[in-house]
Amino acid sequence: MNELKGACVIGQSGGPTAVINASVLGAIQTALNSPQITRVLGAANGIKGVLNGNLYDLGKEDPVELELLKFTPSSALGTCRYKMKDPAIDDCDYAALLDTFKKYDVRYFFYNGGNDSMDTCNKISKYMQKSGYECRVMGIPKTIDNDLFGTDHCPGFASAAKYIATSCMEVKHDACCYDTGMVTIIEVMGRNAGWLTASAALASYAGAGPDLIYLPEVDFCMDTFLNDVESIYAATGKCLVVVSEGIHDADGNFISEAKTNSNDGFGHAQLGGLANKLAEIVRGRIASAKVRAIEPSLLQRCGTHLASTTDALEAYNAGKVAVTAAVEGETDKMVAFERETIYGQYVCHTKLLSLEYVANAERKVPREWINAAGNGIEMAFIDYCLPLIQGETGMKTVQALPRFARLKKVLAKPCCDGSTCKG
Amino acid sequence: MNELKGACVIGQSGGPTAVINASVLGAIQTALNSPQITRVLGAANGIKGVLNGNLYDLGKEDPVELELLKFTPSSALGTCRYKMKDPAIDDCDYAALLDTFKKYDVRYFFYNGGNDSMDTCNKISKYMQKSGYECRVMGIPKTIDNDLFGTDHCPGFASAAKYIATSCMEVKHDACCYDTGMVTIIEVMGRNAGWLTASAALASYAGAGPDLIYLPEVDFCMDTFLNDVESIYAATGKCLVVVSEGIHDADGNFISEAKTNSNDGFGHAQLGGLANKLAEIVRGRIASAKVRAIEPSLLQRCGTHLASTTDALEAYNAGKVAVTAAVEGETDKMVAFERETIYGQYVCHTKLLSLEYVANAERKVPREWINAAGNGIEMAFIDYCLPLIQGETGMKTVQALPRFARLKKVLAKPCCDGSTCKG
Repeated sequence: MNELKGACVIGQSGGPTAVINASVLGAIQTALNSPQITRVLGAANGIKGVLNGNLYDLGKEDPVELELLKFTPSSALGTCRYKMKDPAIDDCDYAALLDTFKKYDVRYFFYNGGNDSMDTCNKISKYMQKSGYECRVMGIPKTIDNDLFGTDHCPGFASAAKYIATSCMEVKHDACCYDTGMVTIIEVMGRNAGWLTASAALASYAGAGPDLIYLPEVDFCMDTFLNDVESIYAATGKCLVVVSEGIHDADGNFISEAKTNSNDGFGHAQLGGLANKLAEIVRGRIASAKVRAIEPSLLQRCGTHLASTTDALEAYNAGKVAVTAAVEGETDKMVAFERETIYGQYVCHTKLLSLEYVANAERKVPREWINAAGNGIEMAFIDYCLPLIQGETGMKTVQALPRFARLKKVLAKPCCDGSTCKG
Repeated sequence: MNELKGACVIGQSGGPTAVINASVLGAIQTALNSPQITRVLGAANGIKGVLNGNLYDLGKEDPVELELLKFTPSSALGTCRYKMKDPAIDDCDYAALLDTFKKYDVRYFFYNGGNDSMDTCNKISKYMQKSGYECRVMGIPKTIDNDLFGTDHCPGFASAAKYIATSCMEVKHDACCYDTGMVTIIEVMGRNAGWLTASAALASYAGAGPDLIYLPEVDFCMDTFLNDVESIYAATGKCLVVVSEGIHDADGNFISEAKTNSNDGFGHAQLGGLANKLAEIVRGRIASAKVRAIEPSLLQRCGTHLASTTDALEAYNAGKVAVTAAVEGETDKMVAFERETIYGQYVCHTKLLSLEYVANAERKVPREWINAAGNGIEMAFIDYCLPLIQGETGMKTVQALPRFARLKKVLAKPCCDGSTCKG
């Protein structure tokens, strides 16, 4: 084993989740306990913090506050959406990065994010290799979209899925309690992959869910949709629909961006999201129904009060494994999950995938997990998803309100002489 | 004590809450145990079920399923929005009601609802008295709006308040994790009273809440609002605003219904809710900010997974007290709550108020509980609200998903001969 001593930087990138901080906690605690890691630094707002030299000294945080990160939503270190250029065209950012790494004696870089972040991670890893600066680079997955390639599932997805399923059950009860006609349309996040939207099917499995579910994996046809809604409404006087924000027509045009025109059955011009747009169209078709659009928006990705403990523990473990593997000599990898079913029990193993392999690839819901009509979800998805959402949240409360982590975020000073120092 | 024997009807009316079924459970279980109550009937969709003779025989329900009502959202018996006419002008409905009461030998009527329902309750009570048909009529309060007159607070409010406070804390974390400018506007239910909107201040009290809160109790001025947002945004690069759907200008015009005009600073014409409208206006003013509108919609009133157990138990008790009091001879009353603080501990007592007294009256947030600028909430409200939201939800889950009550809803047959029969 090549024993590499130096500081580590942990960063978060992209949209947050309910348990992304659990991964950061796993990485921080493991790094603080590792004799090879001399200082544990947090990047303020992901890669931007590294570029600007805004690094927190995480060794100065109160361990009790750190522990609360396991059930604190959003990205505690701050996040960013920043696309690194191709270093062959412009390597300014990479040079700045290397400069920071040298100044702080950074030999380990852990990046916690989704698709784009794994691409960033991959580029940085390759650049460091090319530069001859020894730095081990590891990706820690997260995304409510569940669309990272090569992993059974992604940390953050299950908690969002639980939020969507629970909320759908509650809304189903609410939307059906009047004796008047009612159509309710819920819009769920997920631009290209419908995993999170599919999780609404868990609500139906549990006895109170949507009548119709539309994912971006199947081309959306407005006429078929309206016929679907009309036929369920005709039979029951109610209809609960869940749609992915990313549904698109056969030409790939997002329905949310479709031109609205009062003459083409697409309703009147309006701003607002997809659910509002579909609601307006349904109103034009079913005069007797009250039509309501619900967009849970940020609530679905930050709902730590409904987090799956399975998800939180797996997220923690992903961070821990990234650090452990790097210290043991691994680099240029992303931590991924592999599922095993032992005597009917779900077991989650970790594995390492090359960053090259996962960067810029996307995993979608298999077509056979969606029903033939493209408006519902098959049992195979339930079997896949149900084990992931288990375990009540471990969110701490004080006076019945969440007690989330409060970090000091002390800025770290560079090790000008390149010597190693901890905490 | 006048011992009155006969059936009882329990009905639900108006918008549901996360714990309205706890009240129904309290009434059902108490009625089933009362020797004077010969049959426990549930009105399908409130007063409409009584008018149409759609009454469920609740004695035929599985007691285990009934027990689950304590943490089942929405109105399990079905609800309605139906305004009874003034009987002096048109007493058709009242005559139909009396007819049903006679057919089913109904001597007790319990109506679980808000302002309008207490008005219905009052009218029915007075009509029965005038007709000489002995029937004891009791109102059981509920409303997330918390605006019923004469009671310290209303069942259902606290659970919705806990949902809003928790969600605001989570959204605050999410909305502040990027290093880019961000304004987030959350729209909360409450047309005339701002209690639920004010509950967002609990989030600030717990360390992560809105910067600005606007209630309908204070006239809303668009210019002042924009200045408020701009000044917080200038200082921090972020701004989280919570607004009541019922905010209105000094002339009483709802802002949500304000004409939009691209020339008057009110943004462009659009459909959608108040939050979307305000977001569009803020976008026009602060070009550098990403502005997001969030409308939790039904989620806020059916979020039983975040129900306050204090609220659920008080809701249960309201139903129980209504039945007990009626059996003991009371009529024409609504159950209300009175707060006592004993050695710093919150204690909730029940009392009975005449329906006449509570019908058509509305209770608003005291002006002194809102800050002078009209954009924030004072500590007096926190002291008022905090005890109400205590206690984790008792919602039962199976495989990590809610297990809500499933009622059989067997239609009851009339007692044609007027004889009394139970179950």
